[in-house]
Amino acid sequence: MAHPVSPLAPKTYPELPEIAGIRFATAEAGIKYRNRTDVLLVAMDEGTVVAGVLTTSKCPSAAVDWCRDNLPGGKARALLVNSGNANAFTGKKGRAAVALSADIVSKALGVAPGEIFLASTGVIGEPLPAEKFAGVTDDLVARLAAGPWMDAAKAIMTTDTFAKVATATVEFDGVPVQIAGIAKGSGMIAPDMATMLSFVFTDAPIAAPVLKSLLQPAIDTSFNAVTVDSDTSTSDTCLVFATGKAGIEPITAADDPRAASFAAALADVLHELAIHVVRDGEGATKMVTVTVEGAESDRSAFRIAQSIANSPLVKTAIAGEDANWGRVVMAVGKAGEPANRDLLAISFGDIRVATDGERDPGYDEAATSAYMKNEEIEIRVGIGLGTGTATVYTCDLTHGYITINGDYRS
Amino acid sequence: MAHPVSPLAPKTYPELPEIAGIRFATAEAGIKYRNRTDVLLVAMDEGTVVAGVLTTSKCPSAAVDWCRDNLPGGKARALLVNSGNANAFTGKKGRAAVALSADIVSKALGVAPGEIFLASTGVIGEPLPAEKFAGVTDDLVARLAAGPWMDAAKAIMTTDTFAKVATATVEFDGVPVQIAGIAKGSGMIAPDMATMLSFVFTDAPIAAPVLKSLLQPAIDTSFNAVTVDSDTSTSDTCLVFATGKAGIEPITAADDPRAASFAAALADVLHELAIHVVRDGEGATKMVTVTVEGAESDRSAFRIAQSIANSPLVKTAIAGEDANWGRVVMAVGKAGEPANRDLLAISFGDIRVATDGERDPGYDEAATSAYMKNEEIEIRVGIGLGTGTATVYTCDLTHGYITINGDYRS
Repeated sequence: MAHPVSPLAPKTYPELPEIAGIRFATAEAGIKYRNRTDVLLVAMDEGTVVAGVLTTSKCPSAAVDWCRDNLPGGKARALLVNSGNANAFTGKKGRAAVALSADIVSKALGVAPGEIFLASTGVIGEPLPAEKFAGVTDDLVARLAAGPWMDAAKAIMTTDTFAKVATATVEFDGVPVQIAGIAKGSGMIAPDMATMLSFVFTDAPIAAPVLKSLLQPAIDTSFNAVTVDSDTSTSDTCLVFATGKAGIEPITAADDPRAASFAAALADVLHELAIHVVRDGEGATKMVTVTVEGAESDRSAFRIAQSIANSPLVKTAIAGEDANWGRVVMAVGKAGEPANRDLLAISFGDIRVATDGERDPGYDEAATSAYMKNEEIEIRVGIGLGTGTATVYTCDLTHGYITINGDYRS
Repeated sequence: MAHPVSPLAPKTYPELPEIAGIRFATAEAGIKYRNRTDVLLVAMDEGTVVAGVLTTSKCPSAAVDWCRDNLPGGKARALLVNSGNANAFTGKKGRAAVALSADIVSKALGVAPGEIFLASTGVIGEPLPAEKFAGVTDDLVARLAAGPWMDAAKAIMTTDTFAKVATATVEFDGVPVQIAGIAKGSGMIAPDMATMLSFVFTDAPIAAPVLKSLLQPAIDTSFNAVTVDSDTSTSDTCLVFATGKAGIEPITAADDPRAASFAAALADVLHELAIHVVRDGEGATKMVTVTVEGAESDRSAFRIAQSIANSPLVKTAIAGEDANWGRVVMAVGKAGEPANRDLLAISFGDIRVATDGERDPGYDEAATSAYMKNEEIEIRVGIGLGTGTATVYTCDLTHGYITINGDYRS
């Protein structure tokens, strides 16, 4: 937490609305950090539905296992999140810790364990002292309130250098439906998914299966389209809770036209949160957008974009403000996807640096070097084989990343 | 070249033997570097056979294309290698440059273009000024000699901080068969293959198809088992030349028992060269051996080992001398291979840090931290599902890597 705030941090933060049916509080449980909040408890009114996407890691945290068991029920009454300890690779102790956590929340709020969701982020392999939650629960329950969201976002941070919030409103017949989202994540970030943790709350009255069907596509263009270091967390969790309190007729079918409008707003919130995660990438000094066009398929374009965005050589070149498009060629070549060297075109921003498999005839080193000094860098690669496109967001790889990760645990 | 010599550089170098039928010389052609050799010309006696493995990159260099065309012929009379320019992603100019290079060598040595092999390493995307070879060829031909090999190894270096040589001798009925190998590579190193460039010379009388059949398995446990930064070069090339001058009966069948002995010696040389490449990994301060056991198959074990060895978080932790086995768990989990969290066992050296999916009951932080101060780190992961094993070699990820790669091209 002693790291300087990312130079890519947003200059302003949106004001997040209260979400009817959602109250929360944060506390200092002393899990690992001192003198900062590390627990977030969210209480949800009866009738709240939930959908979620969890890490594909084969070694998920105990909290991820817990959420995976409860998600099919589709109902939620509480969310407990801690930072400082991931409760991952903690074996039987980890399972006992989630059971104890749920028990503490269940008794404090009078809700069923099957409707409680848990998330933990921080160090892997250390037993989570869940008993510490008991010491702060009464106080948390007494202080439950509808805001401020910034407190919630701060309590779930680990190596994050700024809190991540996003919001959107969509109106149906003049009635606003509100969405408020928070996220944390800075390292161990890669598809899929890059979250590490994100929680989104809405007052939309929407059936759990519809919410679930909307979520995955929105994840694919947000958290699954960002990468900091190609490392995928054991704890990645994105949960969306809908209280149903907004005064509109419930959305009960995916083909309800309002579902598409709501999905677009939800996707916006998730995308904004995901971009915040990249902008807080450990050591990041530049935000990088990699767009691949003309691949054989969208999936192929995505894999090529990932290969570029994950390449340490591409990322260090960007850190050095070096328009080293040769490394982009390298990354296209190693992706294993269909590509014909002699059809490739590469642009940095609006400057086409390579075309038809060689340096652009009008290549201007000075102009390109000047462009590389920008804080936001856009790399555009034309494959020239088809119509597949994809965009992946990443950051540069700097000394800061090494410093942060060379001594995180100890 | 201004970078300090890797702390993992070998303390001594073996004396490489002369290989009957092989003569070479180096020169300063001024391709990019000044005041150092950057061209290697090797002349081979008639009867020399060749086998090779080339990059799987979809964007290979023009020299790789040239070698791929000539390898099926199985005959070699010359090898021309330059450092400073990779002649990759150079389009028609690149094809013209290899044609011109071959023409220059063909005239100078009086050999057919189809028996000339070319390799280039260095910057991507800059046209290779092959005409500069013509200016040094007469001098090179005049100085052709059977040694010293160290000169050959030095002329092909780019960001390498030490020259890489290895040798082996295998005797058949008291007659020695000699193998001498050189390699270069320091960044843009990952399976497959990590070479960037390696050239091995032997006086073994061996049929080209037999040599070819021996080479790939030896590559799999050497150059394809090392990674520095997960980036695969456009130029990776490993060529083995056999002059047939040793006084033994020719090895003409793969089931000749002598083929296995020769293959073992060849594998030793390639393995030693590959380890040198890791030990010269850009910014490396520690040599890391990752062994995965108990996977469902050798292939699965290899993929898990790769995932660990390529993880920036694992590599930065090692740089920080932090026994952060939680990141090893993360890397196992993201590999996408069969793994059961609760069966995992992890050791650093002889110290078992995790077992049955949680921290080892006897875990000793002090002892583990002391181990992490070693220059050579061994990570051993037991998957507990089967009998598949694999070993991958890598190095740590340090500030040095960022420094070297943030400003290589300019």
